Amino acid sequence: MQIAIGLYDGFTALDAIGPYQVFSNIPGVDVVLCAERVGPLHDDNDLLHLTIEHTFADVPTPDVLLVPGGVITRQLATDRAPVVEWIAAAHPRTTWTTSVCTGSLLLGAAGVLDGIAATTHWCAYDELRTYGAEPTEQRVVRVGKVVTGAGVSAGIDMALTLTGLIWGQDMAEAIQLAIEYDPQPPYDAGSPSKAPAPILELVSAVIAQQEAELRAGA
Amino acid sequence: MQIAIGLYDGFTALDAIGPYQVFSNIPGVDVVLCAERVGPLHDDNDLLHLTIEHTFADVPTPDVLLVPGGVITRQLATDRAPVVEWIAAAHPRTTWTTSVCTGSLLLGAAGVLDGIAATTHWCAYDELRTYGAEPTEQRVVRVGKVVTGAGVSAGIDMALTLTGLIWGQDMAEAIQLAIEYDPQPPYDAGSPSKAPAPILELVSAVIAQQEAELRAGA
Repeated sequence: MQIAIGLYDGFTALDAIGPYQVFSNIPGVDVVLCAERVGPLHDDNDLLHLTIEHTFADVPTPDVLLVPGGVITRQLATDRAPVVEWIAAAHPRTTWTTSVCTGSLLLGAAGVLDGIAATTHWCAYDELRTYGAEPTEQRVVRVGKVVTGAGVSAGIDMALTLTGLIWGQDMAEAIQLAIEYDPQPPYDAGSPSKAPAPILELVSAVIAQQEAELRAGA
Repeated sequence: MQIAIGLYDGFTALDAIGPYQVFSNIPGVDVVLCAERVGPLHDDNDLLHLTIEHTFADVPTPDVLLVPGGVITRQLATDRAPVVEWIAAAHPRTTWTTSVCTGSLLLGAAGVLDGIAATTHWCAYDELRTYGAEPTEQRVVRVGKVVTGAGVSAGIDMALTLTGLIWGQDMAEAIQLAIEYDPQPPYDAGSPSKAPAPILELVSAVIAQQEAELRAGA
Protein backbone atom coordinates (compact mmCIF):
# COMPACT_ATOMS: atom_id res chain seq x y z
CA MET A 1 0.00 0.00 0.00
CA GLN A 2 1.66 3.18 -1.19
CA ILE A 3 0.40 6.60 -0.11
CA ALA A 4 1.94 9.47 -2.06
CA ILE A 5 1.69 13.00 -0.68
CA GLY A 6 2.40 15.37 -3.57
CA LEU A 7 4.14 18.59 -2.49
CA TYR A 8 5.23 21.85 -4.13
CA ASP A 9 6.85 25.09 -2.98
CA GLY A 10 4.20 27.05 -1.11
CA PHE A 11 2.14 24.17 0.31
CA THR A 12 0.56 24.69 3.73
CA ALA A 13 2.44 22.54 6.23
CA LEU A 14 -0.41 21.24 8.39
CA ASP A 15 -2.46 20.25 5.30
CA ALA A 16 0.21 17.66 4.56
CA ILE A 17 1.49 16.78 8.03
CA GLY A 18 -1.94 16.04 9.54
CA PRO A 19 -2.62 13.16 7.13
CA TYR A 20 1.08 12.22 7.13
CA GLN A 21 0.91 11.65 10.89
CA VAL A 22 -2.19 9.50 10.53
CA PHE A 23 -0.92 7.35 7.66
CA SER A 24 2.65 6.95 8.86
CA ASN A 25 1.34 5.29 12.02
CA ILE A 26 -0.30 2.48 10.03
CA PRO A 27 1.82 -0.69 9.86
CA GLY A 28 2.99 -1.73 6.41
CA VAL A 29 2.12 1.52 4.67
CA ASP A 30 4.69 3.12 2.37
CA VAL A 31 4.21 6.87 2.80
CA VAL A 32 6.10 8.85 0.17
CA LEU A 33 6.58 12.62 0.18
CA CYS A 34 7.15 13.57 -3.44
CA ALA A 35 7.50 16.68 -5.59
CA GLU A 36 8.50 17.77 -9.07
CA ARG A 37 12.18 17.58 -8.19
CA VAL A 38 14.33 16.08 -5.46
CA GLY A 39 16.06 18.59 -3.22
CA PRO A 40 14.89 21.57 -1.18
CA LEU A 41 11.24 22.54 -0.92
CA HIS A 42 9.57 25.08 1.34
CA ASP A 43 6.12 25.71 2.76
CA ASP A 44 4.00 28.84 2.28
CA ASN A 45 5.76 30.65 5.14
CA ASP A 46 9.20 29.77 3.77
CA LEU A 47 10.09 28.77 7.33
CA LEU A 48 9.72 25.01 7.02
CA HIS A 49 12.40 23.67 4.71
CA LEU A 50 12.16 20.08 3.53
CA THR A 51 14.47 17.90 1.52
CA ILE A 52 12.52 15.87 -1.02
CA GLU A 53 13.88 12.50 -2.10
CA HIS A 54 11.21 11.30 -4.52
CA THR A 55 9.93 12.92 -7.70
CA PHE A 56 6.42 12.61 -9.08
CA ALA A 57 7.97 10.40 -11.77
CA ASP A 58 9.18 8.02 -9.04
CA VAL A 59 5.60 7.54 -7.81
CA PRO A 60 3.44 7.19 -10.94
CA THR A 61 0.88 4.74 -9.53
CA PRO A 62 0.23 5.35 -5.84
CA ASP A 63 -2.66 3.50 -4.22
CA VAL A 64 -3.61 6.67 -2.39
CA LEU A 65 -2.79 10.09 -3.85
CA LEU A 66 -3.03 13.11 -1.57
CA VAL A 67 -2.39 16.77 -2.28
CA PRO A 68 -2.33 19.54 0.32
CA GLY A 69 -3.41 23.12 -0.30
CA GLY A 70 -1.86 26.54 -0.15
CA VAL A 71 -2.57 29.99 -1.55
CA ILE A 72 -0.39 29.14 -4.53
CA THR A 73 -2.74 26.37 -5.69
CA ARG A 74 -4.75 28.92 -7.73
CA GLN A 75 -1.66 29.64 -9.79
CA LEU A 76 -0.57 26.00 -10.03
CA ALA A 77 -4.04 25.05 -11.20
CA THR A 78 -4.13 27.79 -13.84
CA ASP A 79 -0.61 26.98 -15.04
CA ARG A 80 -1.30 23.26 -15.09
CA ALA A 81 1.83 22.78 -13.00
CA PRO A 82 3.68 19.44 -12.75
CA VAL A 83 1.65 18.46 -9.67
CA VAL A 84 -1.52 18.78 -11.76
CA GLU A 85 -0.06 16.66 -14.55
CA TRP A 86 0.96 14.06 -11.98
CA ILE A 87 -2.58 13.91 -10.56
CA ALA A 88 -4.11 13.65 -14.04
CA ALA A 89 -1.79 10.79 -15.01
CA ALA A 90 -2.06 8.87 -11.72
CA HIS A 91 -5.76 9.29 -10.95
CA PRO A 92 -7.12 6.66 -13.36
CA ARG A 93 -5.16 3.98 -11.52
CA THR A 94 -5.41 5.13 -7.90
CA THR A 95 -7.60 3.42 -5.35
CA TRP A 96 -8.22 6.76 -3.66
CA THR A 97 -7.55 10.28 -4.92
CA THR A 98 -7.66 12.82 -2.12
CA SER A 99 -6.99 16.42 -1.15
CA VAL A 100 -6.88 18.74 1.83
CA CYS A 101 -7.90 22.41 1.71
CA THR A 102 -7.27 24.08 -1.67
CA GLY A 103 -5.48 20.96 -2.82
CA SER A 104 -8.92 20.29 -4.29
CA LEU A 105 -8.26 23.05 -6.86
CA LEU A 106 -5.36 20.90 -8.09
CA LEU A 107 -7.66 17.89 -8.34
CA GLY A 108 -10.11 20.13 -10.18
CA ALA A 109 -7.48 21.32 -12.65
CA ALA A 110 -6.56 17.69 -13.27
CA GLY A 111 -10.18 16.97 -14.22
CA VAL A 112 -10.88 14.79 -11.22
CA LEU A 113 -13.84 16.76 -9.82
CA ASP A 114 -15.93 17.43 -12.91
CA GLY A 115 -19.59 17.08 -11.97
CA ILE A 116 -19.05 15.76 -8.46
CA ALA A 117 -19.42 17.10 -4.93
CA ALA A 118 -16.20 18.22 -3.27
CA THR A 119 -14.97 20.48 -0.52
CA THR A 120 -12.08 22.87 0.00
CA HIS A 121 -11.05 25.70 2.32
CA TRP A 122 -14.17 27.81 2.97
CA CYS A 123 -12.58 30.72 1.09
CA ALA A 124 -12.35 28.79 -2.19
CA TYR A 125 -15.83 27.46 -2.96
CA ASP A 126 -16.23 29.74 -5.98
CA GLU A 127 -12.91 28.72 -7.45
CA LEU A 128 -13.73 25.07 -6.90
CA ARG A 129 -16.93 25.53 -8.91
CA THR A 130 -14.93 26.70 -11.94
CA TYR A 131 -13.59 23.15 -12.25
CA GLY A 132 -17.06 21.70 -12.54
CA ALA A 133 -17.23 20.56 -8.92
CA GLU A 134 -20.22 21.06 -6.64
CA PRO A 135 -18.78 22.85 -3.59
CA THR A 136 -20.12 21.19 -0.46
CA GLU A 137 -19.83 22.68 3.01
CA GLN A 138 -18.76 19.52 4.80
CA ARG A 139 -15.62 18.57 6.70
CA VAL A 140 -14.98 15.55 4.45
CA VAL A 141 -16.70 14.77 1.15
CA ARG A 142 -16.49 11.37 -0.51
CA VAL A 143 -17.74 10.59 -4.00
CA GLY A 144 -16.59 7.17 -5.14
CA LYS A 145 -12.83 7.08 -4.80
CA VAL A 146 -12.44 10.85 -4.53
CA VAL A 147 -12.20 12.19 -0.98
CA THR A 148 -11.74 15.90 -0.33
CA GLY A 149 -11.19 17.58 3.02
CA ALA A 150 -11.98 21.15 4.10
CA GLY A 151 -9.35 23.68 5.16
CA VAL A 152 -5.93 22.90 6.69
CA SER A 153 -6.73 21.04 9.92
CA ALA A 154 -9.47 19.00 8.18
CA GLY A 155 -6.75 16.78 6.78
CA ILE A 156 -6.68 14.89 10.07
CA ASP A 157 -10.41 14.12 9.88
CA MET A 158 -10.07 13.25 6.18
CA ALA A 159 -7.17 10.86 6.80
CA LEU A 160 -8.94 9.14 9.70
CA THR A 161 -12.06 8.77 7.56
CA LEU A 162 -9.97 7.22 4.81
CA THR A 163 -8.20 4.97 7.32
CA GLY A 164 -11.59 3.65 8.41
CA LEU A 165 -12.63 3.08 4.80
CA ILE A 166 -9.45 1.22 3.91
CA TRP A 167 -8.44 -0.60 7.10
CA GLY A 168 -11.64 -0.52 9.14
CA GLN A 169 -12.84 1.18 12.30
CA ASP A 170 -10.43 -0.60 14.68
CA MET A 171 -7.39 0.71 12.85
CA ALA A 172 -8.80 4.22 12.61
CA GLU A 173 -9.57 4.22 16.34
CA ALA A 174 -6.09 2.91 17.14
CA ILE A 175 -4.50 5.72 15.17
CA GLN A 176 -6.84 8.28 16.71
CA LEU A 177 -5.80 7.10 20.17
CA ALA A 178 -2.10 7.00 19.25
CA ILE A 179 -2.18 10.65 18.19
CA GLU A 180 -4.53 11.47 21.10
CA TYR A 181 -6.97 13.11 18.70
CA ASP A 182 -9.63 14.14 21.19
CA PRO A 183 -9.88 17.73 20.00
CA GLN A 184 -10.97 20.40 22.47
CA PRO A 185 -10.58 23.77 20.76
CA PRO A 186 -10.57 26.56 23.35
CA TYR A 187 -12.81 28.65 21.07
CA ASP A 188 -15.63 27.77 18.65
CA ALA A 189 -14.83 29.81 15.55
CA GLY A 190 -13.49 27.14 13.23
CA SER A 191 -15.96 27.58 10.36
CA PRO A 192 -17.61 30.58 8.68
CA SER A 193 -20.97 29.70 10.23
CA LYS A 194 -19.49 29.62 13.73
CA ALA A 195 -17.06 32.55 13.66
CA PRO A 196 -18.22 36.03 14.70
CA ALA A 197 -18.92 38.18 11.62
CA PRO A 198 -16.04 40.63 12.21
CA ILE A 199 -13.58 37.73 12.50
CA LEU A 200 -14.88 36.24 9.26
CA GLU A 201 -14.52 39.59 7.50
CA LEU A 202 -11.01 40.06 8.84
CA VAL A 203 -9.75 36.61 7.84
CA SER A 204 -11.44 36.84 4.43
CA ALA A 205 -9.68 40.14 3.81
CA VAL A 206 -6.29 38.75 4.86
CA ILE A 207 -6.66 35.75 2.57
CA ALA A 208 -7.80 37.96 -0.33
CA GLN A 209 -4.73 40.12 0.20
CA GLN A 210 -2.42 37.08 0.24
CA GLU A 211 -3.92 35.92 -3.05
CA ALA A 212 -3.57 39.40 -4.57
CA GLU A 213 0.06 39.63 -3.48
CA LEU A 214 0.79 36.24 -4.95
CA ARG A 215 -0.86 37.20 -8.26
CA ALA A 216 1.05 40.49 -8.31
CA GLY A 217 4.33 38.72 -7.63
CA ALA A 218 3.72 36.01 -10.21
CA MET B 1 7.78 38.30 19.66
CA GLN B 2 9.96 35.28 19.01
CA ILE B 3 8.57 31.75 19.21
CA ALA B 4 11.25 29.06 19.12
CA ILE B 5 10.26 25.48 18.36
CA GLY B 6 13.12 23.25 19.52
CA LEU B 7 13.59 20.13 17.40
CA TYR B 8 15.78 17.00 17.46
CA ASP B 9 16.11 13.84 15.39
CA GLY B 10 13.14 11.65 16.20
CA PHE B 11 10.56 14.32 16.99
CA THR B 12 6.94 13.60 16.07
CA ALA B 13 6.03 15.78 13.11
CA LEU B 14 2.47 16.81 14.03
CA ASP B 15 3.53 17.74 17.59
CA ALA B 16 5.59 20.55 16.06
CA ILE B 17 3.63 21.40 12.91
CA GLY B 18 0.27 21.84 14.65
CA PRO B 19 1.52 24.76 16.79
CA TYR B 20 3.77 25.94 13.95
CA GLN B 21 0.70 26.38 11.74
CA VAL B 22 -1.12 28.33 14.44
CA PHE B 23 1.76 30.65 15.34
CA SER B 24 3.04 31.25 11.81
CA ASN B 25 -0.36 32.72 10.91
CA ILE B 26 -0.02 35.48 13.52
CA PRO B 27 1.20 38.79 12.08
CA GLY B 28 4.55 40.01 13.37
CA VAL B 29 5.58 36.77 15.03
CA ASP B 30 9.08 35.43 14.42
CA VAL B 31 8.71 31.65 14.40
CA VAL B 32 12.08 29.88 14.51
CA LEU B 33 12.62 26.17 14.02
CA CYS B 34 15.88 25.37 15.81
CA ALA B 35 17.97 22.38 16.79
CA GLU B 36 21.38 21.45 18.15
CA ARG B 37 22.99 21.88 14.74
CA VAL B 38 22.10 23.42 11.42
CA GLY B 39 21.61 20.97 8.58
CA PRO B 40 19.51 17.84 8.11
CA LEU B 41 17.07 16.62 10.76
CA HIS B 42 14.46 13.89 10.56
CA ASP B 43 11.24 12.98 12.33
CA ASP B 44 10.49 9.74 14.17
CA ASN B 45 9.50 7.97 10.95
CA ASP B 46 12.66 9.12 9.17
CA LEU B 47 10.39 10.06 6.26
CA LEU B 48 10.13 13.79 6.87
CA HIS B 49 13.51 15.39 6.29
CA LEU B 50 14.03 19.00 7.33
CA THR B 51 16.89 21.39 6.86
CA ILE B 52 17.50 23.36 10.04
CA GLU B 53 18.94 26.85 9.76
CA HIS B 54 19.08 27.95 13.40
CA THR B 55 20.88 26.35 16.34
CA PHE B 56 19.73 26.46 19.94
CA ALA B 57 22.63 28.86 20.51
CA ASP B 58 21.10 31.23 17.92
CA VAL B 59 17.89 31.44 19.96
CA PRO B 60 18.93 31.74 23.61
CA THR B 61 16.07 33.96 24.80
CA PRO B 62 12.82 33.17 22.97
CA ASP B 63 9.64 34.76 24.27
CA VAL B 64 7.85 31.46 23.75
CA LEU B 65 9.74 28.18 23.92
CA LEU B 66 8.02 25.07 22.59
CA VAL B 67 9.24 21.49 22.41
CA PRO B 68 7.42 18.65 20.63
CA GLY B 69 7.48 15.02 21.75
CA GLY B 70 8.57 11.71 20.33
CA VAL B 71 9.46 8.27 21.65
CA ILE B 72 13.08 9.37 21.86
CA THR B 73 12.32 12.01 24.51
CA ARG B 74 12.84 9.39 27.26
CA GLN B 75 16.41 8.95 26.12
CA LEU B 76 17.04 12.66 25.55
CA ALA B 77 15.72 13.42 29.01
CA THR B 78 17.90 10.77 30.65
CA ASP B 79 20.98 11.85 28.70
CA ARG B 80 20.34 15.53 29.38
CA ALA B 81 20.64 16.14 25.65
CA PRO B 82 21.35 19.60 24.16
CA VAL B 83 17.62 20.33 23.84
CA VAL B 84 17.29 19.86 27.61
CA GLU B 85 20.23 22.17 28.29
CA TRP B 86 18.67 24.75 25.97
CA ILE B 87 15.36 24.61 27.85
CA ALA B 88 17.09 24.88 31.24
CA ALA B 89 19.08 27.92 30.12
CA ALA B 90 16.23 29.71 28.33
CA HIS B 91 13.35 29.01 30.71
CA PRO B 92 14.19 31.62 33.39
CA ARG B 93 13.78 34.37 30.78
CA THR B 94 10.89 33.08 28.67
CA THR B 95 7.44 34.55 28.82
CA TRP B 96 5.97 31.11 28.14
CA THR B 97 7.60 27.69 28.29
CA THR B 98 5.54 25.05 26.54
CA SER B 99 5.45 21.48 25.29
CA VAL B 100 3.37 19.07 23.26
CA CYS B 101 3.08 15.35 24.00
CA THR B 102 6.21 13.83 25.58
CA GLY B 103 8.00 17.10 25.00
CA SER B 104 6.96 17.59 28.64
CA LEU B 105 9.56 14.98 29.64
CA LEU B 106 12.18 17.35 28.23
CA LEU B 107 10.73 20.21 30.27
CA GLY B 108 10.79 17.88 33.26
CA ALA B 109 14.44 16.94 32.74
CA ALA B 110 15.23 20.66 32.52
CA GLY B 111 13.68 21.16 35.96
CA VAL B 112 10.73 23.17 34.69
CA LEU B 113 7.94 20.96 36.04
CA ASP B 114 9.09 20.26 39.60
CA GLY B 115 6.05 20.32 41.87
CA ILE B 116 3.56 21.56 39.30
CA ALA B 117 0.69 20.07 37.32
CA ALA B 118 1.47 19.13 33.73
CA THR B 119 0.26 16.85 30.97
CA THR B 120 1.83 14.66 28.30
CA HIS B 121 0.86 11.84 25.97
CA TRP B 122 -1.44 9.48 27.91
CA CYS B 123 1.22 6.75 27.77
CA ALA B 124 3.78 8.81 29.70
CA TYR B 125 2.10 9.91 32.95
CA ASP B 126 4.36 7.71 35.08
CA GLU B 127 7.53 9.02 33.45
CA LEU B 128 6.32 12.58 33.86
CA ARG B 129 5.92 11.96 37.59
CA THR B 130 9.61 11.03 37.90
CA TYR B 131 10.43 14.68 37.17
CA GLY B 132 8.39 15.92 40.09
CA ALA B 133 5.38 16.91 38.00
CA GLU B 134 1.78 16.11 38.88
CA PRO B 135 0.43 14.33 35.78
CA THR B 136 -2.95 15.79 34.93
CA GLU B 137 -5.37 14.20 32.48
CA GLN B 138 -6.32 17.38 30.62
CA ARG B 139 -5.87 18.48 27.02
CA VAL B 140 -3.96 21.60 28.02
CA VAL B 141 -2.52 22.38 31.46
CA ARG B 142 -1.33 25.83 32.44
CA VAL B 143 0.56 26.65 35.63
CA GLY B 144 1.91 30.18 35.58
CA LYS B 145 3.98 30.52 32.43
CA VAL B 146 4.29 26.78 31.83
CA VAL B 147 1.78 25.33 29.37
CA THR B 148 1.82 21.64 28.48
CA GLY B 149 -0.34 19.89 25.91
CA ALA B 150 -1.42 16.25 25.72
CA GLY B 151 -0.43 13.87 22.93
CA VAL B 152 0.47 14.82 19.33
CA SER B 153 -2.68 16.53 17.99
CA ALA B 154 -3.17 18.42 21.28
CA GLY B 155 -0.53 20.86 20.12
CA ILE B 156 -3.18 22.65 18.06
CA ASP B 157 -5.41 23.16 21.10
CA MET B 158 -2.39 24.18 23.18
CA ALA B 159 -1.23 26.73 20.62
CA LEU B 160 -4.71 28.24 20.24
CA THR B 161 -5.01 28.46 24.02
CA LEU B 162 -1.68 30.25 24.17
CA THR B 163 -2.69 32.52 21.29
CA GLY B 164 -5.73 33.57 23.28
CA LEU B 165 -3.62 34.20 26.39
CA ILE B 166 -1.06 36.30 24.51
CA TRP B 167 -3.06 38.08 21.80
CA GLY B 168 -6.63 37.71 23.02
CA GLN B 169 -9.71 35.82 21.90
CA ASP B 170 -10.20 37.67 18.60
CA MET B 171 -6.77 36.65 17.33
CA ALA B 172 -7.22 33.05 18.47
CA GLU B 173 -10.60 32.87 16.73
CA ALA B 174 -9.16 34.39 13.57
CA ILE B 175 -6.42 31.76 13.47
CA GLN B 176 -8.91 29.00 14.24
CA LEU B 177 -11.03 30.15 11.30
CA ALA B 178 -8.01 30.53 9.00
CA ILE B 179 -6.98 26.92 9.60
CA GLU B 180 -10.66 25.84 9.59
CA TYR B 181 -10.21 24.11 12.92
CA ASP B 182 -13.73 22.82 13.38
CA PRO B 183 -12.72 19.26 14.22
CA GLN B 184 -15.13 16.45 13.42
CA PRO B 185 -13.32 13.17 14.09
CA PRO B 186 -15.15 10.29 12.38
CA TYR B 187 -14.61 8.13 15.48
CA ASP B 188 -14.55 8.88 19.21
CA ALA B 189 -11.51 7.02 20.46
CA GLY B 190 -9.05 9.85 20.98
CA SER B 191 -8.32 9.33 24.67
CA PRO B 192 -7.84 6.29 26.92
CA SER B 193 -11.21 6.88 28.59
CA LYS B 194 -13.02 6.95 25.24
CA ALA B 195 -11.23 4.20 23.29
CA PRO B 196 -12.52 0.62 23.44
CA ALA B 197 -10.43 -1.48 25.84
CA PRO B 198 -8.91 -3.75 23.16
CA ILE B 199 -7.80 -0.69 21.16
CA LEU B 200 -6.19 0.82 24.25
CA GLU B 201 -4.38 -2.45 24.96
CA LEU B 202 -3.18 -2.70 21.37
CA VAL B 203 -1.86 0.84 21.13
CA SER B 204 -0.25 0.62 24.58
CA ALA B 205 1.57 -2.54 23.49
CA VAL B 206 2.76 -0.95 20.24
CA ILE B 207 4.11 2.10 22.07
CA ALA B 208 5.81 -0.08 24.72
CA GLN B 209 7.47 -2.05 21.92
CA GLN B 210 8.67 1.14 20.21
CA GLU B 211 10.19 2.30 23.47
CA ALA B 212 11.85 -1.10 24.04
CA GLU B 213 13.28 -1.12 20.53
CA LEU B 214 14.65 2.36 21.00
CA ARG B 215 16.26 1.40 24.31
CA ALA B 216 17.73 -1.76 22.77
CA GLY B 217 19.13 0.21 19.84
CA ALA B 218 20.55 2.97 22.01
